[in-house]
Amino acid sequence: MTAPISFLSDFGLIDEFVGVIHGVLATLAPESRVIDITHGVDRGDLRGGALTLMRAVQYLPEDGIVLAVVDPGVGTSRRALAAETQRGHFIGPDNGLLSPAVALVGGATRIHSVENPDARITSPGDTFAGRDVFAPAAALLATGEMSIGDLGPEVDPDSVSPLLLPLPEIKDDKLHGEVWWIDNFGNAQTNLDPETLMGLGCNVGDKVTVRIGSTDHELLWVTTYADVEPGAPLLHVDSSGLLAIAIREGRADEECGLTLGRTVITGKAGRQP
Amino acid sequence: MTAPISFLSDFGLIDEFVGVIHGVLATLAPESRVIDITHGVDRGDLRGGALTLMRAVQYLPEDGIVLAVVDPGVGTSRRALAAETQRGHFIGPDNGLLSPAVALVGGATRIHSVENPDARITSPGDTFAGRDVFAPAAALLATGEMSIGDLGPEVDPDSVSPLLLPLPEIKDDKLHGEVWWIDNFGNAQTNLDPETLMGLGCNVGDKVTVRIGSTDHELLWVTTYADVEPGAPLLHVDSSGLLAIAIREGRADEECGLTLGRTVITGKAGRQP
Amino acid sequence: MTAPISFLSDFGLIDEFVGVIHGVLATLAPESRVIDITHGVDRGDLRGGALTLMRAVQYLPEDGIVLAVVDPGVGTSRRALAAETQRGHFIGPDNGLLSPAVALVGGATRIHSVENPDARITSPGDTFAGRDVFAPAAALLATGEMSIGDLGPEVDPDSVSPLLLPLPEIKDDKLHGEVWWIDNFGNAQTNLDPETLMGLGCNVGDKVTVRIGSTDHELLWVTTYADVEPGAPLLHVDSSGLLAIAIREGRADEECGLTLGRTVITGKAGRQP
Repeated sequence: MTAPISFLSDFGLIDEFVGVIHGVLATLAPESRVIDITHGVDRGDLRGGALTLMRAVQYLPEDGIVLAVVDPGVGTSRRALAAETQRGHFIGPDNGLLSPAVALVGGATRIHSVENPDARITSPGDTFAGRDVFAPAAALLATGEMSIGDLGPEVDPDSVSPLLLPLPEIKDDKLHGEVWWIDNFGNAQTNLDPETLMGLGCNVGDKVTVRIGSTDHELLWVTTYADVEPGAPLLHVDSSGLLAIAIREGRADEECGLTLGRTVITGKAGRQP
Repeated sequence: MTAPISFLSDFGLIDEFVGVIHGVLATLAPESRVIDITHGVDRGDLRGGALTLMRAVQYLPEDGIVLAVVDPGVGTSRRALAAETQRGHFIGPDNGLLSPAVALVGGATRIHSVENPDARITSPGDTFAGRDVFAPAAALLATGEMSIGDLGPEVDPDSVSPLLLPLPEIKDDKLHGEVWWIDNFGNAQTNLDPETLMGLGCNVGDKVTVRIGSTDHELLWVTTYADVEPGAPLLHVDSSGLLAIAIREGRADEECGLTLGRTVITGKAGRQP
Repeated sequence: MTAPISFLSDFGLIDEFVGVIHGVLATLAPESRVIDITHGVDRGDLRGGALTLMRAVQYLPEDGIVLAVVDPGVGTSRRALAAETQRGHFIGPDNGLLSPAVALVGGATRIHSVENPDARITSPGDTFAGRDVFAPAAALLATGEMSIGDLGPEVDPDSVSPLLLPLPEIKDDKLHGEVWWIDNFGNAQTNLDPETLMGLGCNVGDKVTVRIGSTDHELLWVTTYADVEPGAPLLHVDSSGLLAIAIREGRADEECGLTLGRTVITGKAGRQP
């Protein structure tokens, strides 16, 4: 069996971009299963795409190929990369998109620049890199027709674009972080991990003060939504393992003024955060 | 060949929820075909999800697995169910979502509660039931690695949550029903079946009075859109077998004030409905 | 292996229409891979659907089946067609939807009208042609259970509906065309080909005057986005081989007033176009 290909992009589902890439994959790797992670990443949102891929990667088939295309620098000279990891291969632009997911699975054992003209489709006009470069490389790896070394020269890992992700900070006994993701249901994931908040003396079952903008919210840190009444806000460790603010049967983003990137400051209730 | 899995949810396609579940299915049942029924059910809309599944179920592969997740009670103690029917298995929450579709295919021969910890994925934080409970159960049934009896204890069918669907009523020689579904094209399906309307003396080719709100519309009951002029409203038996109000090359919802759940009263034209 | 089926429609992804057709295909052709080209064609937009299919067709698996349903005349007597080409079969309504794609792959070697009742699903109410007629025909061809001749009688190619696509014109040394497609990123593809513009003395690297409405834009004709500064508009040959107007890291549709069908007049800069 050829390897499955997991595919993420910011192409949306209105145009035929995703369909055309499925066509290329079906042509070059007719036995490969293709998993659409999502194509709903905001246009050109590298950080959003990278975080989405990082959240998803551990649930994708091992030893498969991850094909990810969010490429605001399309048409520039940024490289096309193929990374080998202990959990399969990753194909995408050299712009940081792959970095958090590759790091999460233990880092790359080697990285190559996709340059071999035999690994490309030639198009009548401008290159559509997803279709002409990334998809063929993914398909050729999936079938085993090419190895990563066939795709192009190895590159120095230090030359690869990182993605700068904001880290939470402890200042004055409070934990400062930000909103990383607001999902379709209005839940707001932060970049705060529960262990750090526990280090400040907060625990499941406590009220935690969460400052959003200039407003302090006292949120109960619970294990599951059902621990509060319908309509009540809560703090919990979400299904990715990070602290998230939610409202049972409601939208936390709208009710608490949470937007992407907004600063969130947490600390023990009763103290001024 | 392993069984195909047909998957419906209210997750939408912007986040990676659907993709992650595809990843879990591809990992645990790499040979199973996955059919996305839709992921566009309105958030938490149990009735909409149940009706969608009921309309679709007879066109899904027989002897497959239906995986359905619309779960406004996520995080509460509602059970995860697996139902065996004469047309394959159904996996979903115990909240009525599966009931109409299971009834349509002849009812469940037995129902089990999915509780076996070996049939689950463990996650770093809060349980994402679609990913951690429902998808693994569907995949294990699809491959035959587990039987329904392995998933957990059998439950009393009378303990399973039903879904209350409004039935049409005859009052004063008129048929009272409501709008069940408005599709992407603006067509409004009612819960009225053609046989009952025929019992009131209406037939294909007749003008039928349809009261929507306080307005009476005289609609021609036709076999197909082409029986009226472009732009004209019509009554017909739609492709699910129920009476529906449509406008040829137009949107009946906008032009006739039709919204989900709105009462529709039909009777012979010429009489006050 | 049975043939893959590439599927395009205007059904959208909110309702279960696409899922039900996948169910029918999985039932009748369980081994066929299905590629969703897109289901985001505007409701009833034959020209948009036909152009989308034309752009995608060369990237779909050869010797597969193309199933395309955009059908504003649903319920009328327009025929269901199956066309045999040197690049597989095409199934869809006789309304011009298939014509540009079939022409692009060299034309049909024969065309049949899908009329065989054994190639249909019978439904409880009105016919849903995508589900009851087109999908079964595609699946039966894919598995080889029926040949095109089994689907119904051959039809005269001259009786098949064409699709009238606007051709560019040269008037007073300027090239007059129109906008054919605005993609998700705001790029505007025209119906102008680069060879014709070169025939007027314009070349890559030149400034070209492009009149949109009553405004003249002097656009640099470049090979790739990176040849202009971020935020600057440009003219280039897009990945389908046609002249397109784009803005590096911006939306050309919004900034240049480009809408579908809008006239675009190009000529050498410095002259009044």
